[in-house]
Amino acid sequence: MDIAVKSEQVLETETEFREYLKRMSNYQEALGLIGWDLRTGAPKKGAAQRAEVIGTLSADVFKMAVSKEMEKFIETLSSEEAQSNLDDVTKSSLYQCKKTFDKQRNIPEDEFKNYVILTSNAESIWPEAKDTGDFAMFLPYLEKIVAYNRKYTDWVGYEGNRYNALLDDYEPGLTVETLDRVFGELRDRLVPLVKAVQESDSKPETDFLFTHFPKDKQEQLSRALLEQMGYDFEAGRLDTTVHPFAAGLNPNDVRVTTKYDEGDFRTAVFGTIHEGGHALYEQNIDEKYIGTPVCSGTSMGIHESQSLFWENFAGRNKAFWEKNYGLLKENSNGQFDNISLEDFYRGINVAGPSLIRIEADEMTYTLHIIVRYELEKALINGDLEPRDLPEAWNDKMEEYLGVRPQHDGEGVLQDVHWSGGAFGYFPSYALGYVYAAQLMAAMRKDLDTPFEGLLREGSLKPVKEWMTERVHKFGRSKQPLEILQDTTGEGINPKYLIDYLEKKYSDVYELNR
Amino acid sequence: MDIAVKSEQVLETETEFREYLKRMSNYQEALGLIGWDLRTGAPKKGAAQRAEVIGTLSADVFKMAVSKEMEKFIETLSSEEAQSNLDDVTKSSLYQCKKTFDKQRNIPEDEFKNYVILTSNAESIWPEAKDTGDFAMFLPYLEKIVAYNRKYTDWVGYEGNRYNALLDDYEPGLTVETLDRVFGELRDRLVPLVKAVQESDSKPETDFLFTHFPKDKQEQLSRALLEQMGYDFEAGRLDTTVHPFAAGLNPNDVRVTTKYDEGDFRTAVFGTIHEGGHALYEQNIDEKYIGTPVCSGTSMGIHESQSLFWENFAGRNKAFWEKNYGLLKENSNGQFDNISLEDFYRGINVAGPSLIRIEADEMTYTLHIIVRYELEKALINGDLEPRDLPEAWNDKMEEYLGVRPQHDGEGVLQDVHWSGGAFGYFPSYALGYVYAAQLMAAMRKDLDTPFEGLLREGSLKPVKEWMTERVHKFGRSKQPLEILQDTTGEGINPKYLIDYLEKKYSDVYELNR
Repeated sequence: MDIAVKSEQVLETETEFREYLKRMSNYQEALGLIGWDLRTGAPKKGAAQRAEVIGTLSADVFKMAVSKEMEKFIETLSSEEAQSNLDDVTKSSLYQCKKTFDKQRNIPEDEFKNYVILTSNAESIWPEAKDTGDFAMFLPYLEKIVAYNRKYTDWVGYEGNRYNALLDDYEPGLTVETLDRVFGELRDRLVPLVKAVQESDSKPETDFLFTHFPKDKQEQLSRALLEQMGYDFEAGRLDTTVHPFAAGLNPNDVRVTTKYDEGDFRTAVFGTIHEGGHALYEQNIDEKYIGTPVCSGTSMGIHESQSLFWENFAGRNKAFWEKNYGLLKENSNGQFDNISLEDFYRGINVAGPSLIRIEADEMTYTLHIIVRYELEKALINGDLEPRDLPEAWNDKMEEYLGVRPQHDGEGVLQDVHWSGGAFGYFPSYALGYVYAAQLMAAMRKDLDTPFEGLLREGSLKPVKEWMTERVHKFGRSKQPLEILQDTTGEGINPKYLIDYLEKKYSDVYELNR
Repeated sequence: MDIAVKSEQVLETETEFREYLKRMSNYQEALGLIGWDLRTGAPKKGAAQRAEVIGTLSADVFKMAVSKEMEKFIETLSSEEAQSNLDDVTKSSLYQCKKTFDKQRNIPEDEFKNYVILTSNAESIWPEAKDTGDFAMFLPYLEKIVAYNRKYTDWVGYEGNRYNALLDDYEPGLTVETLDRVFGELRDRLVPLVKAVQESDSKPETDFLFTHFPKDKQEQLSRALLEQMGYDFEAGRLDTTVHPFAAGLNPNDVRVTTKYDEGDFRTAVFGTIHEGGHALYEQNIDEKYIGTPVCSGTSMGIHESQSLFWENFAGRNKAFWEKNYGLLKENSNGQFDNISLEDFYRGINVAGPSLIRIEADEMTYTLHIIVRYELEKALINGDLEPRDLPEAWNDKMEEYLGVRPQHDGEGVLQDVHWSGGAFGYFPSYALGYVYAAQLMAAMRKDLDTPFEGLLREGSLKPVKEWMTERVHKFGRSKQPLEILQDTTGEGINPKYLIDYLEKKYSDVYELNR
């Protein structure tokens, strides 16, 4: 009798809690739509007032996440008796809410408010600092942002290295210990590969990459490729933007954006496939998680593994173009008529050291990230001061990539992340590559038809389904490292990525001939 | 000393009130964007979950409008002492809030909730009832909706005719007494005009209206026409939709939608100009009203006066095409090469009785509205029962327009309005014509260059500015009849519209030759 009564109370609290989450999630969905709109053609004069709307809705979400009511929900539903009565959606939701609540409640309100203003100002001045390469202009902001992030690690707590507190925000469970090992291996084996590729005499032809490709034909091609990947256009749409992204408003409304450069079709083709990979993740989260904080990708790294898997392991695979080179030619103006498939394949895989991360190829990309990781870790641990960043940056770029920026605009100031205080974010990008290669290897073992065979036929359904069953459907109900372990039988292992890159670039650059 | 203290309290309450309104207005802006998105390409699978977001935000707005807090604001700020201290934005806002509050608080909560469900169900079954012409299917819903609206008039109160309570929701200050006079005059003089036009031997050529006109060229033309009207594309955008509308999210983000029919360019050309007229109104409301309920058009009728002014008095004017016929030809496929300007002008002004309101021309449109007005008034006053509507509808159509529907799908069931309970709305459409003609006459007196001269030059700035100064900028701070009186020196007077229509159609149909 007593237990029955208690269970009824739990049930009631669970229902209230889920209603509360639904409300938060509805505000967030509105915010998601506003964000998408602002980046896909919202009139610029309306942006200032739209910021007010964002302010109101964000404050609602924030207040609800740290409210007395939330505290009560967490307390009631965390009891042993409650736990044994909760369904898995509520349990996973509670876990996410508690994590947010515990972190937020230790941050002094005043410090947080000032920090929001600080980063907002820093983001405003950053473009000018970057464009003029003026690090001195940015330094006072950066110093305060780093100081806050050091304090933040104390407020929210950490085990081992102080930087772990920041990693956990983007990649739950990830530690410096792991990253040092993983990035160390990557660095040690990629630096020689980059050198070998640079010294190769067999460079791909690339002229055809830059021939005129009309925008409307690129759009047709982009749509056809998304269809082939299994992107559901009834639960999404494709638009154009300046900095492409995918927006998951809910699993039935996940939007892809892309950019058409008529002088370089790769921007749209690989950009669309990349964002399409993110979108497939969000479209295939189990619908039972709708209206809860579980209904999104489990981490930045796993999200990036999906986009990079599609962009590189599928989209830059020769077999993919055996299927799609004809489609590309149909949608073009005849500029590929004299380019063989082999030359096309080598051309789209041209690689080499460069200064700018967002323009880097898959061979060098992770090295750009390792530079940032090592600098961030040193900054947060007090082993490096912000004023010494430019020198440290340039030295590392020279050491790992063999190139040295001429000014800070193409060096330490190139990325927006630090102006927004996003320390701990960069490693996710590299982990995305590592995860993607591990998932690729595991998938190969499970597929009935070899992966390249599927690409050649354009039958990508088994690929999407494999990812959905092992990654997508769980949303945030499984932790990133749990997904990796369950799917591949091991932890983070960079060997698969390195082997793949060595094999691929030996082929493209004919290193072994 | 005492007064100073009191004033400080008022000031504080005023500040809180304005913050409160800003919050409501921010929710409403989010709702506006969601609405625009749903009608311009939001993925259909996401619509159900988006409805939940709409539910959350609408409930927030509704609760805030009738809250204890709102009641307190109204009480405090309505005192004589407070009134003398408030600025005009707050005063106008308070007026709107009080009006909503007073109406809402008299409606029994249960009845309101049931009514929301009732109309939602009625809207769902209406399309099928319409498509199959099945009035019996719709009748049970309509009976309940009419019954609610009769009770509603008692709850919110009225002077004179019971129907005045409903008119006031859409056209504040409008009464049956006025409408009977205005619509009576219109009916008496338009019915003979329609007959004369029908009997004319000189019918315009219309074949060229239906020649193929590519969508992308129609879009270019639509954009050019909006530019010419003075629509600010930096504070708006043009998209496509099924049922065109304009969405004013705030004066700096007012979006126009249109529809391209490749077999009839008039849909887009006049649709775009029409919605552009609505958009100019919203773009030119004084920015000081942003974040308050004053920041929108003052009534449905005045709003419609703006769209109809541009669509008909400008867009269907011969002088407008003296300027723009070349532009239309440039954007077409040569199908107008053998059509003279005179024939083109007559063709786009083809008119005659028809069954469907939304396809009606400007000569017959108001008669369609008068039919609805007379029936609504009889229904609400209990002089007509819903079951007798089809017969009454058909009789009136025959009397005023000389046509009789073959089935209820092209008769009494054709419009969505009644399924949503929007009784009192229809008259605004006809008033829009009447107001537009009155404003046109007043504007002619003020303009330095004759109106047709401006159209001929494509110099429409003085026209837009005149409307902004007299209509747009006030938002809802002036009542519709106040705007009319201040601008034209008189009340609602249908003479201007009738004179205009008689003159125009005598010309187009050569009635006096």
